[in-house]
Amino acid sequence: MSQPRSVGAVVAQSAHFDEPLATRSGGVLQAYDLAYETYGTLNAEHSNAVLVCHALNAAHHVAGYYADDPKNIGWWDNMVGPGKPLDTDKFFVLGVNNIGGCFGSTGPASINPKTGKPYGSSFPVVTVEDWVNAQARLADRLGIERFAAVMGGSLGAMQALQWTISHPARIRNAIAIATAPKLSAQNIAFNEVARQAITTDPDFHGGNYYGHGVVPRRGLRLARMIGHITYLSDDAMMEKFGRALRSGAPQFHFDVDFEVESYLRYQGDKFAEYFDANTYLLITRALDYFDPAQDYEGDLSRAFERAKARFLVISFTSDWRFASSRSREVVKALLDNRLDVSYAEIDAPHGHDAFLLEDARYHALVRAWYDNLHRELAP
Amino acid sequence: MSQPRSVGAVVAQSAHFDEPLATRSGGVLQAYDLAYETYGTLNAEHSNAVLVCHALNAAHHVAGYYADDPKNIGWWDNMVGPGKPLDTDKFFVLGVNNIGGCFGSTGPASINPKTGKPYGSSFPVVTVEDWVNAQARLADRLGIERFAAVMGGSLGAMQALQWTISHPARIRNAIAIATAPKLSAQNIAFNEVARQAITTDPDFHGGNYYGHGVVPRRGLRLARMIGHITYLSDDAMMEKFGRALRSGAPQFHFDVDFEVESYLRYQGDKFAEYFDANTYLLITRALDYFDPAQDYEGDLSRAFERAKARFLVISFTSDWRFASSRSREVVKALLDNRLDVSYAEIDAPHGHDAFLLEDARYHALVRAWYDNLHRELAP
Repeated sequence: MSQPRSVGAVVAQSAHFDEPLATRSGGVLQAYDLAYETYGTLNAEHSNAVLVCHALNAAHHVAGYYADDPKNIGWWDNMVGPGKPLDTDKFFVLGVNNIGGCFGSTGPASINPKTGKPYGSSFPVVTVEDWVNAQARLADRLGIERFAAVMGGSLGAMQALQWTISHPARIRNAIAIATAPKLSAQNIAFNEVARQAITTDPDFHGGNYYGHGVVPRRGLRLARMIGHITYLSDDAMMEKFGRALRSGAPQFHFDVDFEVESYLRYQGDKFAEYFDANTYLLITRALDYFDPAQDYEGDLSRAFERAKARFLVISFTSDWRFASSRSREVVKALLDNRLDVSYAEIDAPHGHDAFLLEDARYHALVRAWYDNLHRELAP
Repeated sequence: MSQPRSVGAVVAQSAHFDEPLATRSGGVLQAYDLAYETYGTLNAEHSNAVLVCHALNAAHHVAGYYADDPKNIGWWDNMVGPGKPLDTDKFFVLGVNNIGGCFGSTGPASINPKTGKPYGSSFPVVTVEDWVNAQARLADRLGIERFAAVMGGSLGAMQALQWTISHPARIRNAIAIATAPKLSAQNIAFNEVARQAITTDPDFHGGNYYGHGVVPRRGLRLARMIGHITYLSDDAMMEKFGRALRSGAPQFHFDVDFEVESYLRYQGDKFAEYFDANTYLLITRALDYFDPAQDYEGDLSRAFERAKARFLVISFTSDWRFASSRSREVVKALLDNRLDVSYAEIDAPHGHDAFLLEDARYHALVRAWYDNLHRELAP
């Protein structure tokens, strides 16, 4: 095993699609662009392609860095690269910014060719199904008939699951990490508060803030703060910040006094600098609406009837956003269909964020899985 | 046992204090009013008084209703009344709106006699210790040398605990329900997001919105929504709302689609109508700063060295805001001091809100406790 390395400097690419994309919400995108990156080499059989799907705050920049921005490192760089668990010496890895995003793919901030103005609030509500369909078209374009694997964490994992339902013949393996078969009422509630923070910000202007030279920064930073609380476990927060006071003693004011306040404000401010508010609304709504069992009278097992993939499902014990019990619902439904499924519940203290961190057992498991897959693919 | 009844129509009273109250934060209130209510009759020995302390969204109106507003029922009416667990046929019950509040006691919306304008942001930061000291002065005024019990849930319970430390000779029993010896980083984080929602609302005007004819309504409703999520367990929310859609099928928009969204917006809107934003800031800050162990190098056991009271500590299994493990920290510290403590961990599905609900086992326990206490007090 070679020492893990970075994929190095990477270049984002863009694919333009002229075929209209009908969304589940009843909208139509007449044409659209998808921003994507690839790492590694597609083999002669085109059998070694792995699609990595992103969650809320990420995009197609999965690994490596940009030559002109070396600090901008891919969001799953610890997972993807030469000698890493998803080894780019063996696999051809594809990252795509989803429709509705704000990092290069067509989204609410893009110009609507019909009006010459940004889509803003007129951008159609998009769903996980829509994303998967758009990803499939990109796969067509790249000559990938069938993915060796589709992989993601959180909302990214929901896309991996949806692939096995929407395009069962085009996915050999699904790796679904830290996910749920649908949001709970509490999950939706957190999303709703974040959205309310954005839409009631006076700078939101009904979603058409682009023309006003402002962004709903206050709302975005609150949304991000709420998100951060749910990404970390109570214990992880206690470990990271405790009740530490910035100046050692209570100052009795409403400015930053506890370290955790400083952290949240910093994260919120940073996020509000670069993330598009309409994209935040769209992505949280896609989370809310994801529910593959809905078309089957709530029966998740029936939802997976057409699935053929082999599954690896991973959850983390301290994840209270998508608790292990939610992953077990998925596993149960897969087993009901006699599908090949491995499930690992990893004892990790970091909460939902664990899927992004370099936990040794977690990474060893993913590595072993891909090693086996690579052996199978050998001609 | 007589059939439980309401205490009936009640009248709020007010006590004016001219002695300055120095706050732990270094501020001074030169004079102040405390709004309070009483139920039942103080016995000849003045030994049957029970102080009920309120948490975030409540005040001195603990039980009964107002003759001119019969729907305005006290917040703990299921607990306090003739034949109820805290039986007003046996006990003299006192409810007080704390300093900094917005329901009759002196708070940020009150006129500062020095300036002739509302205190607004100049109101001193108040702590649980300050509240307890103000309550003690009211007890003096009412001729109560020693409370038979001080009781509360959540932040109210913190006041009961503080009484045993600040005024050990003046409290026979402390009943602390659904509480913690100090907030966790996650608890503080939720408070901070709520405060940021308020203080970044353009209508906040640095806390001096009274003069602008506006209130930071957007911030208040977000704060309340966040609060509500933490008051309920995930299971209770799922039980109450599930993923129910208001119109049966997804509408693919950002207006209310799921029932839980409707609930949160309604609760937020209602709260923003009557609650003072500066009071919200003050009360959440009092929660953050509560930490009796702080003066004892973090040793909670030492904090209770002077305590003499008998304790009843109650927690609820599904309370994730103040989990049972937090109550056990209190119990441990009390036992270290060889104090008389009973602890009940009640298996209830409702989350933190359980302390306000009429759970049969919970109420039976409190009833038994007060029955015993009443027997002891008999001359």
